[in-house]
Amino acid sequence: MKEQSAQVRWEQHTQRPLLALAVLFAVAYAVPIVDTSAGRSLTAVCTVVEWVVWGVFAVDYLVRLSLARDRRGFVRQHWMDLCAVVLPLIQPLRLLRLVSTLLLVGQRARMASQIRVTTYVAGAVVGLLMFGSLAVLSVERDAPNGNIRTLGDAVWWSFTTMTTVGYGDHAPTTGLGRMVAVGLMLSGIALLGVVTANIAAWFIERFEKDDVEERRQTEAIQALTEEVRELRAEVAALRKTSVGG
Amino acid sequence: MKEQSAQVRWEQHTQRPLLALAVLFAVAYAVPIVDTSAGRSLTAVCTVVEWVVWGVFAVDYLVRLSLARDRRGFVRQHWMDLCAVVLPLIQPLRLLRLVSTLLLVGQRARMASQIRVTTYVAGAVVGLLMFGSLAVLSVERDAPNGNIRTLGDAVWWSFTTMTTVGYGDHAPTTGLGRMVAVGLMLSGIALLGVVTANIAAWFIERFEKDDVEERRQTEAIQALTEEVRELRAEVAALRKTSVGG
Amino acid sequence: MKEQSAQVRWEQHTQRPLLALAVLFAVAYAVPIVDTSAGRSLTAVCTVVEWVVWGVFAVDYLVRLSLARDRRGFVRQHWMDLCAVVLPLIQPLRLLRLVSTLLLVGQRARMASQIRVTTYVAGAVVGLLMFGSLAVLSVERDAPNGNIRTLGDAVWWSFTTMTTVGYGDHAPTTGLGRMVAVGLMLSGIALLGVVTANIAAWFIERFEKDDVEERRQTEAIQALTEEVRELRAEVAALRKTSVGG
Amino acid sequence: MKEQSAQVRWEQHTQRPLLALAVLFAVAYAVPIVDTSAGRSLTAVCTVVEWVVWGVFAVDYLVRLSLARDRRGFVRQHWMDLCAVVLPLIQPLRLLRLVSTLLLVGQRARMASQIRVTTYVAGAVVGLLMFGSLAVLSVERDAPNGNIRTLGDAVWWSFTTMTTVGYGDHAPTTGLGRMVAVGLMLSGIALLGVVTANIAAWFIERFEKDDVEERRQTEAIQALTEEVRELRAEVAALRKTSVGG
Repeated sequence: MKEQSAQVRWEQHTQRPLLALAVLFAVAYAVPIVDTSAGRSLTAVCTVVEWVVWGVFAVDYLVRLSLARDRRGFVRQHWMDLCAVVLPLIQPLRLLRLVSTLLLVGQRARMASQIRVTTYVAGAVVGLLMFGSLAVLSVERDAPNGNIRTLGDAVWWSFTTMTTVGYGDHAPTTGLGRMVAVGLMLSGIALLGVVTANIAAWFIERFEKDDVEERRQTEAIQALTEEVRELRAEVAALRKTSVGG
Repeated sequence: MKEQSAQVRWEQHTQRPLLALAVLFAVAYAVPIVDTSAGRSLTAVCTVVEWVVWGVFAVDYLVRLSLARDRRGFVRQHWMDLCAVVLPLIQPLRLLRLVSTLLLVGQRARMASQIRVTTYVAGAVVGLLMFGSLAVLSVERDAPNGNIRTLGDAVWWSFTTMTTVGYGDHAPTTGLGRMVAVGLMLSGIALLGVVTANIAAWFIERFEKDDVEERRQTEAIQALTEEVRELRAEVAALRKTSVGG
Repeated sequence: MKEQSAQVRWEQHTQRPLLALAVLFAVAYAVPIVDTSAGRSLTAVCTVVEWVVWGVFAVDYLVRLSLARDRRGFVRQHWMDLCAVVLPLIQPLRLLRLVSTLLLVGQRARMASQIRVTTYVAGAVVGLLMFGSLAVLSVERDAPNGNIRTLGDAVWWSFTTMTTVGYGDHAPTTGLGRMVAVGLMLSGIALLGVVTANIAAWFIERFEKDDVEERRQTEAIQALTEEVRELRAEVAALRKTSVGG
Repeated sequence: MKEQSAQVRWEQHTQRPLLALAVLFAVAYAVPIVDTSAGRSLTAVCTVVEWVVWGVFAVDYLVRLSLARDRRGFVRQHWMDLCAVVLPLIQPLRLLRLVSTLLLVGQRARMASQIRVTTYVAGAVVGLLMFGSLAVLSVERDAPNGNIRTLGDAVWWSFTTMTTVGYGDHAPTTGLGRMVAVGLMLSGIALLGVVTANIAAWFIERFEKDDVEERRQTEAIQALTEEVRELRAEVAALRKTSVGG
């Protein structure tokens, strides 16, 4: 019980700093993509920042693993965290670092209420839109037939993809760009699901028909209680007679 | 309690006039966009009407604020109204005036039943389609590569966007036009959510399986009542014997 | 009560013949559009068939109106039927005759169960796809910039529209064609809503968490019954003693 | 009862081998489409494998039919299995063999929990994406105006279709290709429905308002129990008096 609570306490204390680090990571990821005229030194700084943030997340994973009572169970239960830490080491999957960061922060969100779920989803959508735009821009800008060459086009494309509108005025042409697109599409479907489910849950909660059966039960129980009360009075009267007799 | 009721009474009395003003605003907004041959004087009149309507809404906000018992709470709770009043002052956000008007009227709608929610959503969808068409038309008509140049194309584009169909035969090319498009897309997703949630709520309400457990409970209570009734007869008999003996 | 039942009996008896007439109408509507080499006489026959079917539906409406106990209430409640009968008289709305037929048949469907709702929706979807394809084909074939010129393209376009995929390889260019498209889009959203709601209702029904509270209640009632039974045995023993004493 | 259990035991034992055969079938189906330079002998081997797998599924159907207690009921209840076995015999419907295999394996999945349903849907989606890509590629590659000529384009097109994004940068032009597309679109709508329903069911389950009525019932039952207990004490006292007297 104590180890468990140590792990929980660790996760509670590190939640805010890690979120700040994730924002820092996003900035470091965005700068060299958006600012094409960025010098070599700025790009180098950003790369260092990215790796430092990754390192902190990796250390955090190891600390949580060491604090866990059942380590095998922890690895099995938090396999997404493990993927998020290990995958960015492979160079072509560098794109995934931002997703990893999102996941690592997301795993922490203790979902307690419908409002919090919705907030988290809204945050994830904004994060994914930003990530999708930047990732597609960095990949498609140099593609020979690419048609997403400015940040504006990339953001616009992300929106048309995530809402499943898909005009087709801009579309990725490279393999990596299309993988990002698939991610955005699936997120968009999830987003639509969450929005619909939210409204449906609210409707059903609000307009649920009153349960007639239950009210009838309550009345039956009350009638029965009345019955027993009269019985008790009768027995009390009987007792008086019996004692008196 | 009295201030609260003064605020509520104010909102009830102003609801219809403000709705009429909103329609007037929409007309004044639409005329110079649709009628490109409109003279300078007509355009000027429309601009004046727009600003007068905005002024009335601003005054209404101030009156409600002054009638509110807890003014800080009012500002915090009605921050959307504040945005709707303040934002149109910035010139490039002039487009938002129509959205603001929609929001200000919408905030008044007291959602009381599923039918009213659905009516409100249908109204909002029609309003947004009209607003989206006009806004995109006014922005894209003068864009060098724009392909939305007539009211017909604008309305058609709004429908393909809001239903997330997105043929791509017409698509905005300017930043402002794309912001309008994003608004329509998000509204479309919300619309889809409301439609689905409505049907789901209706289905679940209608076809909910009879609760077996509950019927068993009712039977158990009836059996118990029978038991108690027999007990009472027994005690009555006992009393007769006892008195007789 | 008797007039009401006369109306209901009429509706039950006329349901199947009217459905057959609707199918006949659909065939008469489709033939001149699909078979462009159809001679004048065939087209004339089809037009006659269309008008005869419309006439039967109009007569049916009048009979139902005359059988209704509360005629004002009938008109108000069945305003869609009235529109469906009156609108096709206006020539440019000739397209609506097929929709009217669908509506008139659909109004009859007594929705009794989730399965029947789903069947009705599936039927409506097939009917709308057929209607949408034919209507768009007849309108767009002669448009100068039209790109829907064969039945195959029209059906394909209907599917991409109703499922909100919207590739944009084919899209209507005329006002009437676009109105048909908007109808298909909205039907598509409704279709998606029905599909989702169906699955959601099935999930919620199936995986509803066992109500722990209710099971505890049942146990409490059983324990109470046991208690009362022992009490009764006690009173019976008391009675024996009392009589014996 | 025994025949029933024989059928069930057969289905349990054959589930895993049939799944493996389905994967083998998918590989044999994919190889000649993906590897265009595949020699005649490899293609022949794949065709043989396809037919052997089909034969095993046909035999499995016959065994299940012979083990079934009520054979007419079995055929009527499992008409999808029958279609899946019979349809691929018609040459132009060769494409359906993969769908058939999916269906035959899918029918086996005993849906026991929300998680299993979701797993099954995810599996079906992956299978359909793979099938859609391969089928469209094999059909469109040789079409004169086709624009889906590589496996990458086919997979990309499948994703844009199933998520209903539909950029339109790639779209099938042949009748068969479009039929595959319609299948993917409908699957996409079903997928969206399952995702949304899942989230909605989870929300409703989780955030269902506490049933006030039920808590009041529990209290009523407890009060009643207290009443009966006191009654019993009274009767016990009465008995003592009676015996003592």
